[in-house]
This record gives sequence, C-alpha cells and structure tokens, in this order.
Amino acid sequence: MKYRPEDLTRLPRSVEYRERTVYLIDQTAIPREFRIIGLKKVDDVARAIKTMQVRGAPAIGAAAAFGLALYANTTKAKTKDEFMDGFYSAYDRLKNTRPTAVNLFWALNRIKKLVEENLESPLDEIKRIIVAEAQKIADEDVEANLRMGHYGAEILPEGRVLTHCNAGSLATVQLGTVGAVLRVMHRDGTLKLLWVDETRPVLQGARLSAWEYHYDGIPLKLITDNMAGFVMQQGKVDAIIVGADRIVANGDFANKIGTYTLAVLAKEHGIPFFTVAPLSTIDMSLKSGKDIPIEERNPEEVLTCGGCKIAPDVDVYNPAFDVTPHKYLTGIITDKGVVWPPFGRNLRKLFRGE
Amino acid sequence: MKYRPEDLTRLPRSVEYRERTVYLIDQTAIPREFRIIGLKKVDDVARAIKTMQVRGAPAIGAAAAFGLALYANTTKAKTKDEFMDGFYSAYDRLKNTRPTAVNLFWALNRIKKLVEENLESPLDEIKRIIVAEAQKIADEDVEANLRMGHYGAEILPEGRVLTHCNAGSLATVQLGTVGAVLRVMHRDGTLKLLWVDETRPVLQGARLSAWEYHYDGIPLKLITDNMAGFVMQQGKVDAIIVGADRIVANGDFANKIGTYTLAVLAKEHGIPFFTVAPLSTIDMSLKSGKDIPIEERNPEEVLTCGGCKIAPDVDVYNPAFDVTPHKYLTGIITDKGVVWPPFGRNLRKLFRGE
Repeated sequence: MKYRPEDLTRLPRSVEYRERTVYLIDQTAIPREFRIIGLKKVDDVARAIKTMQVRGAPAIGAAAAFGLALYANTTKAKTKDEFMDGFYSAYDRLKNTRPTAVNLFWALNRIKKLVEENLESPLDEIKRIIVAEAQKIADEDVEANLRMGHYGAEILPEGRVLTHCNAGSLATVQLGTVGAVLRVMHRDGTLKLLWVDETRPVLQGARLSAWEYHYDGIPLKLITDNMAGFVMQQGKVDAIIVGADRIVANGDFANKIGTYTLAVLAKEHGIPFFTVAPLSTIDMSLKSGKDIPIEERNPEEVLTCGGCKIAPDVDVYNPAFDVTPHKYLTGIITDKGVVWPPFGRNLRKLFRGE
Repeated sequence: MKYRPEDLTRLPRSVEYRERTVYLIDQTAIPREFRIIGLKKVDDVARAIKTMQVRGAPAIGAAAAFGLALYANTTKAKTKDEFMDGFYSAYDRLKNTRPTAVNLFWALNRIKKLVEENLESPLDEIKRIIVAEAQKIADEDVEANLRMGHYGAEILPEGRVLTHCNAGSLATVQLGTVGAVLRVMHRDGTLKLLWVDETRPVLQGARLSAWEYHYDGIPLKLITDNMAGFVMQQGKVDAIIVGADRIVANGDFANKIGTYTLAVLAKEHGIPFFTVAPLSTIDMSLKSGKDIPIEERNPEEVLTCGGCKIAPDVDVYNPAFDVTPHKYLTGIITDKGVVWPPFGRNLRKLFRGE
C-alpha cells in the first residue's frame, strides 16, 4: 500500500497497550482538551468503556482486549486455576460495560476462545498469548482501515466531500473507516474541502470529527445538519461518505440518524454516496434493512445540547439510527475492496471469496 | 370566519399597547419562563427590539409602531414643532435597532407618512392618529393570520403535520402564519400530531415552537432536524407547512435554513408541502429565487448551542436561510386565499386582484 499509518495522521492510536498500561485518548475531554489517560487496572478500563472515555465499536473492542492483557500482566495468581478464575472475572467486568457493542463481545470472545484452546500450555505462555492476541486485534483494525482508505481514495472523485457523525480515528484504533479514506485523499491532494455535519443530538461531528480532521490539517467547514441540502444545491459537494453500524445482505444499511436524509439529498443532486465499513460490519443473516432494529434513546439528548437545556419538557422522538435503502448507495468500500451494485449478488460473491 | 383569535389560543398578543405601556412577551426568557414585560419609554422599546426580547418580523413591526404611540402619549412637548422633533428622534431610535427587518421600516414609515399628511391637524388629533394607526397595524396582523389559518386548515389533510422554525404566535402579534393554520386545524380536530424540528443553529423550533404549541395543548413531538427524513420514511408525516421570509414572482421562496432539505424529502415521499405568508411577504420585483440574497451569520451560532460551546474553533459556514424552488411547493397559503401552480401566473392574477 502507498501509505503507512504514520504518513496519514499525527494522532497516536486512540487505544494502546505498553508497559502494563492501557492508554486511551479521553474522548469525553475532546474538543476541550487532548488528553491521554493511562489505566493500570481492569476496573479502570471497564469504567472508561462505560463512561465513553473510549467510544466507537472498534476502539471499544481493542480497549476490552487490552483490558484482558492488563489482567494477564498484572495478576498475582500463582496457579493456573487462580489465573483462570481471575480471567473470567475480568472478562465479565469488561463484557458488562456496554449492552449492544458487538465488537466488545467479539474481541473478548476471540481471546477467551484462544485461552481455552491453550489451557494445556504453561501459565507464562498463556499470558503471552493473551497479550499478543490483544495486540493483534488492534493491529488488524489499523490494517483494515488502511486498506479501506486506499480502496476508497481510488474511487472517490477529487473535490469536496461531506461526512456525517464520526467514523474517524477516534472511533477506531487509528485512522478510522471514513477517516482513512479522507486521510489518504488528503495526502494524495484530492480532498479539497471536507464538510462536517455537526450530527445532533450527540454532536459526534462537531465534537469529534471537526476536532480530529482539523488536528490532521484537513481543510474543513462545520455545518449544522440542516445546511447539508443547501450546500449540495449550491453545487459545493462532490461526494458523500459515511460509516455504517450494520450493512445487511441486500446492501441496505443502518447508520447514525440523518444518514438517510443525506442519501435522499445525494440522489436529488446526482452526488455519489458511499459507505465505508469492514466486512465484520456486514450481517448476511438479515435480508433487508427493514429487519434492523432501531434503538430509541433518552429524550434528554434532544432536550439538551452540549450540556445546555434547550427546550421545554415536551414529548420527544429520539431514534439513534436510521436505515438507508441500497438504491441510494453508489458503492460500499470494505477492507476487501469496493462492492458495486447489484449489491445483493456482489456481497454474496465477496463472502464466497470470489 | 369560523373562529375568533380567542377560540384558537390561550396566549395573549405577543405585543400590546395600553395605558401608556408597551407589553411584550419576553422571548429571551422562553422556554425557561413565560414573562410579560411592560415598557414605558421609547428607549426601552428600542432596546427590546435590539436584544430580541421581541423577534419575528410582524411582531417587531407592531412593537416599533407602539413605540411611536408611546412617544405620542408620553411626550412633554408643548408645541407642534417640539412634538415633531421628538417624533423624528423616536422614529430614528426605533429604526436603528435591526438592520434588515423589512416590517420594522414598513410600520414606522406607515405612521410617519400619516403624521406628515396630517400636520395641519391639532396636536391632540395627531397623537390620536398615531395611537390609532399603531393599533390598526397590530389588529391587521392578527386579522391576516386568522384568514390564513382558515384558508390553510381547509386544504391541509387531516393527520400529522411537520413544521420548521417558528412562524407562530411569538413571531407575529398573535396566532402566527403557520401557527394560525395549526391552531385552526387543532380546533377542528384534524391535527393529530405536530412534528417540531428543533431548527439549528438558533433553535427557534425547540425553544419557541415547542413551547407555544405545547402551551396551546397541541399534541407534538420535538425532533432534531436530521430526524425529519426518517420520520417521513416511516410514513408518519401527512403534510409539511413552513413560513416564508420572502416569496418571489415565480413562487420560489426563502425561509429558515433547512427548509429546502424538507422540500426535497417531501417530494421523495410524496408529502404535500406548503408555505404560509401574507401578501406583504411576496416580492413580485424578483423573478426567481436565485435573486434572493442569503444572509450569512456569525460562526458562533454554529460553534455553540443554547449557550454551550460544542465544537473546536474550526471554520464554519452559517447561512441563515435557504431558497426552495417552486417546483417542490404544493401551494402558497396567503391572507387572500391559496395560490396553486402554476405559481407565476397565479401570483400575477392575485396581485391584479382577479
């Protein structure tokens, strides 16, 4: 690949492990402060996940894996039985932090399975396996993003790109999904301007995307979500690129609320519209987007903004995600290449390894 | 007409004049507090306009007119010359409050012209004329809204209506433009649910519309602007109705940023889309929406929300309005009836009085 991660970002990994410490970029401090915290206990890692000091599915997965590595390197257990008791307890504590984070369970189970397969090995070897596997989970995430970045930058048109929410470095171990594509384009000189939707109600665009892309020197303009249509009408957007929380077998996908509106606007203005996600985000067990359950969140998120009360106590509707039908989608950028329409057939091919 | 204002709202007029006092609903206190302030000096009225304790073009116009009435009733001028010096000074102070408020200049000039036509009358008669004309400006605004309300309610489908920004009682003397239509529908029992867009960046939907419609017992749900598309996709919106800042000869119209996005979404989902405005909002001197200048406002509005800082100091684009081409519009509800397509021809007919 053309670039290494260090060619693309000045940011460190948002989750790292070294010298018996889990290091996290504290996302609750951004954009006020860029602060890296070092955690030396499993309970601290669990608390950081729970309080969203680390957020974004891939970043949470890596943080949890490193939580197990931290256990392995700091436990005082003398026997293998003692060690395994402590391991399962750490596993449970980390697992019970966020109820719906698929990557969290996936990363924890990947390590648990490996440990259980190697129970006959000496204790020091088991510890080594855990730390190495956690590191591998983080490295693979960066690798996958790097591939998506290169694939995406090859097909996006040169010009002005609009994005929504945060699928950047902060949401992953490093680079991001959308973030990797934008960073490779920026390095190639083909990203002329980035439009950042603020992404109400939780403001991941204003708080996180604006901060991290500005940090990496990408020229950007922040707008409120309802300005996107006007910017497109004025001919100031050449492509739209968003992340995905779940992509199903026909190419329909769920993503942060507001994505569907952008898709409709893209169609109306003839603007190419892409989603970026690793293969692990694609759920071939669901046939259509109608099958994806939509989480409705706390009304307080809508009644407040950035901590300020902004509305009287009225009824609120607060869906966290929406579903965009595949007919609005130009292409799906994955870590195994770009999927074009017809999505149903081409996704099946991708999963069969053709 | 079927209803009187008092049948439609529990709110008092947002601007009133009696006993040498201008009474205003203090819009800077909403939604925290419903507070009516009484002003006894012209300077206080000017300050209230400047600090947006009163906002909304028609409400500002009436407040300024009442400012002149207040001058007429409280001046200590003994001679007509003294009186007129003070009158022009009050006129200037009120005029220099908001630079682009068309209704402000229109209301002040209407009274100034009448005074200048009656300079031969006795001083007491001139004072009486000023107070009566200011009252007439306010009364006419309520009358016009009442007519729009009845016309609009006749043509809107029964069901769930979505609105944006605030074109309600608070923006006018009473009832509102959109507000009158919603209130007549509510009284008729045909308004099943009102979807209120929060309307970033200044949140007129969350702060003002949610407050005033809730106050009048209209069932509503508040959403962030980027949820409107998803709500339409789910089949939960039967009509969309918005105000207008300026309508031009071909039916294109400028309104609060985000209106254009709603228009595109309405078309995609086959939902009827209306604007409501008095004839005074229609500017037949401009041929198309491309001729309407768009005000770009302070970046701080986007970087903050309800007083809280929400983003790092990055570049911002902050257009206050957008322009919706007439092809997206189902009908224009005016105080002289509903205008249907073809808008160019039918607006010309309306202005010729056919």
